[in-house]
Amino acid sequence: MNLAQSVLKGDRLALARTLTQVENDSAEGRAALAEIFPHTGKAHLIGVTGAPGTGKSSLVNQLALHFRREGKRVAILAVDPSSPFTGGAVLGDRVRMRDLAGDAGVFIRSMATRGSLGGLAQATAAMTQVFDAAGFDVTLIETVGAGQSEVDIARLAHTTLVVEAPGLGDDIQAIKAGILEIADVLVINKADRPGVENTEKALKSMLELAHPTRHVFMHHGQVMAEDEGGQKSAPLDARMWLPPIQRTVAVDGTGIAELAAHIAAHAEHLRASGDWAARERARLGSEMDALLQDALMARFRAEVPNGKFESTLAKVYERSLSPWEAVTLLLNGRQK
Amino acid sequence: MNLAQSVLKGDRLALARTLTQVENDSAEGRAALAEIFPHTGKAHLIGVTGAPGTGKSSLVNQLALHFRREGKRVAILAVDPSSPFTGGAVLGDRVRMRDLAGDAGVFIRSMATRGSLGGLAQATAAMTQVFDAAGFDVTLIETVGAGQSEVDIARLAHTTLVVEAPGLGDDIQAIKAGILEIADVLVINKADRPGVENTEKALKSMLELAHPTRHVFMHHGQVMAEDEGGQKSAPLDARMWLPPIQRTVAVDGTGIAELAAHIAAHAEHLRASGDWAARERARLGSEMDALLQDALMARFRAEVPNGKFESTLAKVYERSLSPWEAVTLLLNGRQK
Repeated sequence: MNLAQSVLKGDRLALARTLTQVENDSAEGRAALAEIFPHTGKAHLIGVTGAPGTGKSSLVNQLALHFRREGKRVAILAVDPSSPFTGGAVLGDRVRMRDLAGDAGVFIRSMATRGSLGGLAQATAAMTQVFDAAGFDVTLIETVGAGQSEVDIARLAHTTLVVEAPGLGDDIQAIKAGILEIADVLVINKADRPGVENTEKALKSMLELAHPTRHVFMHHGQVMAEDEGGQKSAPLDARMWLPPIQRTVAVDGTGIAELAAHIAAHAEHLRASGDWAARERARLGSEMDALLQDALMARFRAEVPNGKFESTLAKVYERSLSPWEAVTLLLNGRQK
Repeated sequence: MNLAQSVLKGDRLALARTLTQVENDSAEGRAALAEIFPHTGKAHLIGVTGAPGTGKSSLVNQLALHFRREGKRVAILAVDPSSPFTGGAVLGDRVRMRDLAGDAGVFIRSMATRGSLGGLAQATAAMTQVFDAAGFDVTLIETVGAGQSEVDIARLAHTTLVVEAPGLGDDIQAIKAGILEIADVLVINKADRPGVENTEKALKSMLELAHPTRHVFMHHGQVMAEDEGGQKSAPLDARMWLPPIQRTVAVDGTGIAELAAHIAAHAEHLRASGDWAARERARLGSEMDALLQDALMARFRAEVPNGKFESTLAKVYERSLSPWEAVTLLLNGRQK
């Protein structure tokens, strides 16, 4: 039985080894990925992102426990793109371990960034496929911060939670319109802290800015809109999803069940609207683009004559060729 | 006189237009970049990064005013990778404008992210070249957050400031070892707030973790080390730079002159150690890599038969081909 087959059988050691091979983008990892790929596409990928200090790790921990109680198998992938040099996610793992250790229905993995641009989102996508094939019903992808990497990783998920906390929102910049726009569910964690009303008010006004409709509310399970004159409109397009705002206190479990209900509702919405398939396609498309880029670059490097690349680069260092001129020269030279 | 020549002459309208063309990666922008490239390599690129709420924009503002008083021409490039959908940097600009507006020796530009992975660092690099050729002595590159994008952008700079503030450091995650390792100078802004001692203590212990030497101090301008027994060693390698920690209160200018002195000392250190040239080379090398990747992808797309790419992608959607198998198939098909 090879590595991929052992993963499909549910062997945890094989799973751990495959994840490492996939993270390292080794030949063994690629072979395993190709073999398990037909068995993917079942898991619900949930992204959890937000600024440092919002308590994301505890929240992910509590969500995992909740899903376990529902009988689901849960993988946690903690991605830390802000620590390209050191493995920053280790501490979070140790905290988590206390509640989840020894549960065969849970698998926790952390990863720091890989060297190349785009490599992190690529490795994350591949690792979620391994969990998916291994039969995990839910993968929680936890990212730190609010940069482009987090947005790229959020795009991998079916459902993205953006976590805020009271007190961090004092500064206008702390609540970024951009990060809000990737949110499917907004979480105000540490909601027992003072200032929670202000945080919620700020989030609501940001949401109103992001959505053209002035007042939107739920009515018998349908999203309704109210225009400026207060007239109630017909139910909005079923494809529309308005990010709910959920208060939680992760450390004591407050609001976790309600949050899980929002997540389930979002998954249902995705399936009903056809967005589930659309997100899968977008994800696979960008995964292919990234692989293609790597392969083209590797082939180019192999084909360009020895020393040609270095001598051209030297001319760029002397500023006698611009980078663009150098690239044009290298590409044309190769075709001759 | 073409666009590039007008930029070299110091024409502000031509500069603004070139920056737009370069940001859009247009043919006109690429032509201008190639023409101005031999005139680059003089500017000091200073990256300023840190979590939201640390007061980076005010700090950049004050540094710009300080450099202006020294007679330097200053460009500010505010990059906001956390707002891929909306232009998040606009507010910061308006705040800055009050102090710097109307000064012909200052040019402020903000940019949000470009679509492609790596596109942002690439566009940022190109825009700093335009400022450099236009005769700006200093370019301050301001980024929000602490993700991979910021690290990539920091790698463009000669000198990187990492900004912290008291109160944000309560959470262990707020001070990331990774982001510290890109810091050439550490700034504790809002240093009039309570908790400044704790922030400084936390930064110092992080620095000690990052540097193997237990105790390092300045002695007659040389970096000295003290071993665990308290014995003073010989001066350390001249190539070694220990990030100083500088307290500032940007809103009233406290600590700005001292910060500028640290920045100048770092530039001197880079030149003396040969690291200035090394950083320039690394920057140009990765710029070429990124351009090459784009060009290879564009050529591949043009060469692959019509419909072939889409039909292969469709097989991936059906999960009858893995993304990696699909890429291999496309590449081999092209060679036949």
